[in-house]
Amino acid sequence: MERRNVGILGATGMVGQRFIQLLENHPWFNITWLAASDRSAGKTYAEACAWRLDTPLPKRIAAMVLQPNTPSAAGPDLPRILFSSVDTPIARELEPLFAAAGCAVISNSSAFRMAADVPLVVPEVNPEHLAMLEQQPTRRASTGKTESAPSGGFIVTNPNCSAIGLVLPLAPLETRFGIEKLFVSTMQAVSGAGYPGVPSLDILSNVIPYIKNEEEKLQEEVAKLLGSATASGFQPAPITVSAHCNRVPVLEGHTECVSIKLRKPATQEQILQAWQEFQPLQGKGLNGLHLPSAPLFPVEYAPEDARPQPRLDLMRGNGMTTTVGRLRPCNLFDWKFTLFSHNTIRGAAGAAVLNAEILAVMGKFDFRDFPPVASGAPNAELISA
Amino acid sequence: MERRNVGILGATGMVGQRFIQLLENHPWFNITWLAASDRSAGKTYAEACAWRLDTPLPKRIAAMVLQPNTPSAAGPDLPRILFSSVDTPIARELEPLFAAAGCAVISNSSAFRMAADVPLVVPEVNPEHLAMLEQQPTRRASTGKTESAPSGGFIVTNPNCSAIGLVLPLAPLETRFGIEKLFVSTMQAVSGAGYPGVPSLDILSNVIPYIKNEEEKLQEEVAKLLGSATASGFQPAPITVSAHCNRVPVLEGHTECVSIKLRKPATQEQILQAWQEFQPLQGKGLNGLHLPSAPLFPVEYAPEDARPQPRLDLMRGNGMTTTVGRLRPCNLFDWKFTLFSHNTIRGAAGAAVLNAEILAVMGKFDFRDFPPVASGAPNAELISA
Amino acid sequence: MERRNVGILGATGMVGQRFIQLLENHPWFNITWLAASDRSAGKTYAEACAWRLDTPLPKRIAAMVLQPNTPSAAGPDLPRILFSSVDTPIARELEPLFAAAGCAVISNSSAFRMAADVPLVVPEVNPEHLAMLEQQPTRRASTGKTESAPSGGFIVTNPNCSAIGLVLPLAPLETRFGIEKLFVSTMQAVSGAGYPGVPSLDILSNVIPYIKNEEEKLQEEVAKLLGSATASGFQPAPITVSAHCNRVPVLEGHTECVSIKLRKPATQEQILQAWQEFQPLQGKGLNGLHLPSAPLFPVEYAPEDARPQPRLDLMRGNGMTTTVGRLRPCNLFDWKFTLFSHNTIRGAAGAAVLNAEILAVMGKFDFRDFPPVASGAPNAELISA
Amino acid sequence: MERRNVGILGATGMVGQRFIQLLENHPWFNITWLAASDRSAGKTYAEACAWRLDTPLPKRIAAMVLQPNTPSAAGPDLPRILFSSVDTPIARELEPLFAAAGCAVISNSSAFRMAADVPLVVPEVNPEHLAMLEQQPTRRASTGKTESAPSGGFIVTNPNCSAIGLVLPLAPLETRFGIEKLFVSTMQAVSGAGYPGVPSLDILSNVIPYIKNEEEKLQEEVAKLLGSATASGFQPAPITVSAHCNRVPVLEGHTECVSIKLRKPATQEQILQAWQEFQPLQGKGLNGLHLPSAPLFPVEYAPEDARPQPRLDLMRGNGMTTTVGRLRPCNLFDWKFTLFSHNTIRGAAGAAVLNAEILAVMGKFDFRDFPPVASGAPNAELISA
Repeated sequence: MERRNVGILGATGMVGQRFIQLLENHPWFNITWLAASDRSAGKTYAEACAWRLDTPLPKRIAAMVLQPNTPSAAGPDLPRILFSSVDTPIARELEPLFAAAGCAVISNSSAFRMAADVPLVVPEVNPEHLAMLEQQPTRRASTGKTESAPSGGFIVTNPNCSAIGLVLPLAPLETRFGIEKLFVSTMQAVSGAGYPGVPSLDILSNVIPYIKNEEEKLQEEVAKLLGSATASGFQPAPITVSAHCNRVPVLEGHTECVSIKLRKPATQEQILQAWQEFQPLQGKGLNGLHLPSAPLFPVEYAPEDARPQPRLDLMRGNGMTTTVGRLRPCNLFDWKFTLFSHNTIRGAAGAAVLNAEILAVMGKFDFRDFPPVASGAPNAELISA
Repeated sequence: MERRNVGILGATGMVGQRFIQLLENHPWFNITWLAASDRSAGKTYAEACAWRLDTPLPKRIAAMVLQPNTPSAAGPDLPRILFSSVDTPIARELEPLFAAAGCAVISNSSAFRMAADVPLVVPEVNPEHLAMLEQQPTRRASTGKTESAPSGGFIVTNPNCSAIGLVLPLAPLETRFGIEKLFVSTMQAVSGAGYPGVPSLDILSNVIPYIKNEEEKLQEEVAKLLGSATASGFQPAPITVSAHCNRVPVLEGHTECVSIKLRKPATQEQILQAWQEFQPLQGKGLNGLHLPSAPLFPVEYAPEDARPQPRLDLMRGNGMTTTVGRLRPCNLFDWKFTLFSHNTIRGAAGAAVLNAEILAVMGKFDFRDFPPVASGAPNAELISA
Repeated sequence: MERRNVGILGATGMVGQRFIQLLENHPWFNITWLAASDRSAGKTYAEACAWRLDTPLPKRIAAMVLQPNTPSAAGPDLPRILFSSVDTPIARELEPLFAAAGCAVISNSSAFRMAADVPLVVPEVNPEHLAMLEQQPTRRASTGKTESAPSGGFIVTNPNCSAIGLVLPLAPLETRFGIEKLFVSTMQAVSGAGYPGVPSLDILSNVIPYIKNEEEKLQEEVAKLLGSATASGFQPAPITVSAHCNRVPVLEGHTECVSIKLRKPATQEQILQAWQEFQPLQGKGLNGLHLPSAPLFPVEYAPEDARPQPRLDLMRGNGMTTTVGRLRPCNLFDWKFTLFSHNTIRGAAGAAVLNAEILAVMGKFDFRDFPPVASGAPNAELISA
Repeated sequence: MERRNVGILGATGMVGQRFIQLLENHPWFNITWLAASDRSAGKTYAEACAWRLDTPLPKRIAAMVLQPNTPSAAGPDLPRILFSSVDTPIARELEPLFAAAGCAVISNSSAFRMAADVPLVVPEVNPEHLAMLEQQPTRRASTGKTESAPSGGFIVTNPNCSAIGLVLPLAPLETRFGIEKLFVSTMQAVSGAGYPGVPSLDILSNVIPYIKNEEEKLQEEVAKLLGSATASGFQPAPITVSAHCNRVPVLEGHTECVSIKLRKPATQEQILQAWQEFQPLQGKGLNGLHLPSAPLFPVEYAPEDARPQPRLDLMRGNGMTTTVGRLRPCNLFDWKFTLFSHNTIRGAAGAAVLNAEILAVMGKFDFRDFPPVASGAPNAELISA
């Protein structure tokens, strides 16, 4: 498969840096365009960015000049695939502009996650929701006989960092047993707040028991992710979620304590088995392609007493695997457990990249004025799953 | 009131150090005896102890010689009031010896908290449970006509550090509305594990989602504390608790996320009012005495978005007040909130000192061979409350 | 002594908060005026300030309305004594305005520390430098028969937080032995950068080996502090200083490693004695007044192997004492040692308050249109010392 | 080259874990034997070890049974090459036993670093010192006509973690300009103290200004490393070093502030050039072999203001490169700079592995009763360098 050109909106932020780290040697994508706010546009990436990752900033990227973040300014250099990690108010303004201009906008922003025609997707959980992107105005008439041809662009989103790590172990339980109620209490890393983000005076030897809008996002996104997508729109799963969200002095990785009430009884062994067998992207078609960023096991169980832990489990599955531990009975509901996931890889940039990979395989990037994907047709089986 | 002589078992540990800090200038008590393990006995306190508090080690204490921790070794120097913070297996062995020798053992250890005749007490919550200490063998015949006169000693315990902070805001809700179900997820400070305790390699930028036996203790102790004490023993409150306990990189103070289901409906205002009016030790008698370590308000509500916080709320009420914040509706139960309390003051040494204070007022230290307390009779009103 | 009215410029910042904490119950001063940037002026202090100290914000202060930070806007409410902790560029503009308006500006800012007629003072080290404030234009003609009477206002500064902690143990060594060379490497707390200050992503489990301009300030301020003030101006001490300044993940308190070459040989005992006997504000006059913020011992030596430490030594002398430890021979120079001091009390707000206290005793606040200090005349002995 | 069998003494400690991580996929070595204290011998590695690294414990290693740590207990399974990271007192006893039994002991312990016939080596700095191992009694008669043939075993050591990071940037400066004086102040990570090591209560938001024996080690090891090895023994370099060693709340990586006085003047450009051109293991022979663990550049300069930093520079050169920054003039000496290096890779396990690699190339593992190395003769050029 020829590498497709891609761009990044919000390239200098923490998630933007992760996009660069994950995409620079990606087999399917090739970064050709970086955009930033007006303040940074015109500078090289190295000049504008306070690189904060522990792998070196690639020299090629360092020398790239940041572009203004409007489609018109981009002109013919605008790639048709854009990864976006701009702040919500900016996303609300910019992402529709780029979709209207014909771009596939793979967004990590919260701006359109709950919109009626925007898929909120984790490929292992609800890939069939991606079909809904055809309902977006920029796609709807794309079969289109009309004079004003739609652009073919669209917006696809991934969930909030704390929702992604949670929904992965929930998905196979929902499938096999049904989930009725869910209590979750999070301990979230400071990297989730971006840079400069959380002041050190607020977090050294401290806990902040509040993250603005986080509990609401977590609660509603889980229901949309586990819900269905039909002709009449998204139907949230009938699951009641109550979240407590906290910030703790951890650099990277969110830990979540979960209590769960199932609709059908399940033994400890059955739950462990559900997680172990959860390999939704394996052998299921996808035209036989392996998604490069997909971990072999999206959920791994750590049997030791005191796991998972940020320091020990952060990079499981290259940062794309949720680690679960401490499955034990709950006095109030049925079971309780602790989960951990990497909040800026699986919880942000890696989530968007994985979305882009599945979209590529489904043929959603086969814009009429673009060379078609080698592998041809979209994965019908997957979509109708 | 003349200051009574007191001793400390386990004087060099973290809680032992707090005992010294809290007792050295106490108006009612006077440290005259410090005991430690065989390894340390015979050394001065300064030699044996790695003092870890941020107030200076009092010079008088520094020069005191550590005694072996048996009643027989103590001889006539043994004070009749002992504060104990030894490890559980040692407490299981030593505390009954000292009680049999006629000492009032005010213990912070978990060894006897759930014992059938040992009161587990927080003075603001269940002072009436203290009447049960008369059921202990060393007291039972203390009215005694028999030849083998009982010693008059006894054991009284305070709860686990995470249970104390929690039970304070629960108590007035239990009284007014009844509590049916309780979900709690903790983020506990490293000082709770003593010294050397948690290795820095395990906690810097990390979370440990497991503290041995902590969830069990929290669950059962809350029920005993909110329960009743009758002739036939302790009856736990019919409350179902599910706990998730975690260690976080915080030096001092436990944060707890709570969801609660009440038996009678309560508005937000009613709950806030219950906490504000919760002053169980005020104006209620206690022979008119104020307990020196009792905070004016055992529960304070912080209305700001992101409170309580360890750094900002640790020393409320001199470390004896639980701070509550973020009271809001819970999707699953009725209400949720976050609480915070000092784990080595209110959660350990301060809890024991407060127990000693109420015991003093109740006349429980008026051993026959001791000068009686100035204030005379036990506080009948309180006991029958 | 009647309490004098004082104001605070930059009242909502970290140092401003410390000013409030230290002044609210001060026996000599009474906060009547708080100023802040235009953005905050008009709000109450509670509305405008993110209070970050672990003692509660006093209710009286919380309700005070923030004033615009110009003398003209203040009108008759402007107190004649102002504590200033605004950022350097703002200080450069505002402090002369207030001095011209007749205020004694006691500044923690770096703007005028090295100015030719502005005293840079630590009361225990170089109180005689305060005489130089009479050289300031607003004071020079204050004996003044001229028509344009000078305002009587002035600017006095305290050093950078890392210079204050260092100069205290240096001062008695300079007096007794002379200091020729000084190597210092610092490990500075995040509170020194204000709020929001250091992003948590930059400091959790990290060291930042650079603080802008800090090494230069430390080097030049030490020489001015240990130098002399004569008619012809300030003469820096002939001491060569080389500094390495680092930020470490510590909330409060700066640790400094020092190697020192003396002009006259000194034994370990002589150095320890010099520190122990260093009580420059005791019994020396000051009209018999004790400065309320002055610690009994400005320098204390901790003989243990691993001292001083931020956690254990922060609050010595109520945060006004420098703790020294590990005095031992240096292969390169004569001696090496480690020191520690509280950077926002002794190193900032407390330093300014102590300056104000000595100024009060010296009669520098006896403005012609103000009631004179009870104690009368300035302390001539001290000034000519 | 066929992979040689190797063993690890002290396999379960922090450095032992790093040995496993670095050796498990090593092209030249094959772990066949793991030894631990009597307490752990007989258990599987997984049972005995609290694995603390963020890469998974290899399954093959997890299942290996720990052997008693004596040559006699090992019998024929004893490999001829042993990596040792046991505590100093144990090393003092055990390492000579294994050398006498014919093993090449590549030790990270401090027990024999300063011994008169034991090379203390960093391959990029003083590989010629390795010739001295022929002076060890177990090697001296190894050309041997005598009846009691020597075993052929030996002991080789690498320096203390803080000395290795420092000596790398010093080496090219010593070669080109000569170093006369050196001041160094360290900020060392907690992993350097092993596990459990530093209690979290001692280091969260704290600095410990003392590491037992560390300053002495750093001072004497640097002189031996930069010195010469002749027939009459090791001659330390005539360099005066004064060290201040501190522990800071950093998980991994030591930061060091250095001031340096040279024997010949050097410009900033000349120093930067010396570091950039420092590639002592490139193109110099070694029989044309590249040492697998040797970084392309042992010293890299980071030109940014606030570098090096633990979070950003830890894994340069796979943890084997020292990063230098902030080269600037020193008021007291000639130049000052900050350096950073990984203390458990370059500073411990990686250092020993690199020593083993150069020993392999030099033919020092070609024991008479072992299959010879493919590449044949020892590297005469290197040894006589």
